[in-house]
Amino acid sequence: SWAQRGAVDSAKQMIQQAIADLLDIEKLKLESSHKFQLADLGCATGTNTFFAVQNIIEAVDAKCKLYSSKHWNNSQSLGLEYQIFFNDHVGNDFNTLFRSFPVLWQYFAAAVPGSFYGRLFPKRSIHFMHSSNALNWISRVPKEVVDINSPAWNEGSIYCSGTANKVLDAYSTQFKNDIETFLDARAQELVGGGLMMLILAGLPDDVLLCQTLIGKSYDILGSCLVDMANKGMFSKERLDSFNLPQYYPHLDEMKEVIPNNKYFSLERIETTFGPSPKDITSNIEMWASLLRSGLEGIIGDQFGNEIPGKLFECYSKKHAENRFSFDEVKDLIAFNIVLKRK
Amino acid sequence: SWAQRGAVDSAKQMIQQAIADLLDIEKLKLESSHKFQLADLGCATGTNTFFAVQNIIEAVDAKCKLYSSKHWNNSQSLGLEYQIFFNDHVGNDFNTLFRSFPVLWQYFAAAVPGSFYGRLFPKRSIHFMHSSNALNWISRVPKEVVDINSPAWNEGSIYCSGTANKVLDAYSTQFKNDIETFLDARAQELVGGGLMMLILAGLPDDVLLCQTLIGKSYDILGSCLVDMANKGMFSKERLDSFNLPQYYPHLDEMKEVIPNNKYFSLERIETTFGPSPKDITSNIEMWASLLRSGLEGIIGDQFGNEIPGKLFECYSKKHAENRFSFDEVKDLIAFNIVLKRK
Repeated sequence: SWAQRGAVDSAKQMIQQAIADLLDIEKLKLESSHKFQLADLGCATGTNTFFAVQNIIEAVDAKCKLYSSKHWNNSQSLGLEYQIFFNDHVGNDFNTLFRSFPVLWQYFAAAVPGSFYGRLFPKRSIHFMHSSNALNWISRVPKEVVDINSPAWNEGSIYCSGTANKVLDAYSTQFKNDIETFLDARAQELVGGGLMMLILAGLPDDVLLCQTLIGKSYDILGSCLVDMANKGMFSKERLDSFNLPQYYPHLDEMKEVIPNNKYFSLERIETTFGPSPKDITSNIEMWASLLRSGLEGIIGDQFGNEIPGKLFECYSKKHAENRFSFDEVKDLIAFNIVLKRK
Repeated sequence: SWAQRGAVDSAKQMIQQAIADLLDIEKLKLESSHKFQLADLGCATGTNTFFAVQNIIEAVDAKCKLYSSKHWNNSQSLGLEYQIFFNDHVGNDFNTLFRSFPVLWQYFAAAVPGSFYGRLFPKRSIHFMHSSNALNWISRVPKEVVDINSPAWNEGSIYCSGTANKVLDAYSTQFKNDIETFLDARAQELVGGGLMMLILAGLPDDVLLCQTLIGKSYDILGSCLVDMANKGMFSKERLDSFNLPQYYPHLDEMKEVIPNNKYFSLERIETTFGPSPKDITSNIEMWASLLRSGLEGIIGDQFGNEIPGKLFECYSKKHAENRFSFDEVKDLIAFNIVLKRK
């Protein structure tokens, strides 16, 4: 998607620099193993994953050539063979992913189905982990926010807007637990000296999600769902039990969860701005279709497969009616994080 | 499928025995790597691949426990983590494969799209290769058998029936080249000491494919396709340019292509009979549906996606009319082959 592509582009240079500075060819034993194993976690079906993978391979190749010229006085590569593991959840459309492969892929490709909030690979089997715009999807919606008897019930909203503290706390706790689980799994799977690049979206210190493009869009989506429930297309209870399992952390939260411990050293943490929301929403149909591609699976599962089509029709209409409210949206930021396995 | 399942069952004991006798835990360095990487080549979407994988894992586990009790005087396993690579061509329905995974799979799963007549994995990265009923699919139809100007033109037939020597030679040559290509790739991918179990169907010395259940079924299919071409559902030329890329070798051909060379030692080669053709064709609808599941992709690609439905309707009808000709069919055999990477 376009929004994701922006994040990939802004991260591209950081990946190249991180590999140039931090890739430890000797510790990774690349000279004897002759292979480099790379995983993209939350790859979806699009082309972003291929761009990211290509970028990493080129950076590793460049580093290897430099190493060879220093140590062996030639600029041959180490003859590395690359194996790329494309991961996403079991319901991802891997058939489409495989059919979209670049014509000339010079690596061995494999798809790995399953949640990255659990183990995906054998111990010490991956040299480089990459994940872009996937960790904003938490493992599940906190139970209490869809429990009408809980003080943390997220009444009248389908997402963590940031306006209700108890809801925010529940989501934030889930996010932190998930990141911890994620890092525990990756610590086992990475080889010593392995690198991990994490890219996810977040919020500037003084911004709530409801003030951003994403938040305003989710408010409109929620209002369309209310309209559809009122028309009897599904029950009020079904709507009440629905929240999006997404979280956008603030910088201080990220600093709290990203470790510098016995497994990982934190090598880089940068924040960048993504593409301007105004550019994105200049074409409402395109924005609606981006939103739909990210959400229709989860919305279809909850409300039935006939719902997303009608929902995003309603969305486009309401967004156009409220287009001026998008003039004031605040920007999201992107966190670009590089960790190294000790 | 049922026919494949028969082959898997008959091979089950051979796999167990081969692993017990031939798996070299020290040469494979399993004690230090703690991982065991296994590939099933031509896995399709069915449950056979899961049975085969489970059987191999159990046999490796048993061997490891025996090893531990001998060397360390305890019966603990080596704590191996299994990573299974499910391979089939890019057009395979991997989504269905992933959704059919056993509930409790105690391994790390990955799908690898691509032809096994080429490299699929990095060098020295697989401990055990398995392929069942996939090597009968050759990489392509020999050009000359669908060239009406060639002396090897396979006039009036859609498969290598065995009755025309020039056609047989063309198919046999392609088969031998393919097996050589296959083995070259696997020699690079297997670790030293790695095992490979190949199961494929073949013909007893004095039997032609046209005398078997498969051959008679393909004759009926061919006759249905002629009917459909005569009705104008596709052109005569389209039919003439169609042959099935399948080959069923005789034992002496297998012995010729299976190596005992600097890369591989031939550890076992056995022939067994599959399930009786009479049992299989007691239910014509089931047999037609088995045939269809194997062929509809390739037939749809050649004639259009609306053709397989009508074709297999015609098939069932003609098979029923000719059911007595199936009383005399000759059995296929299965080759069970175990190779070890030196």
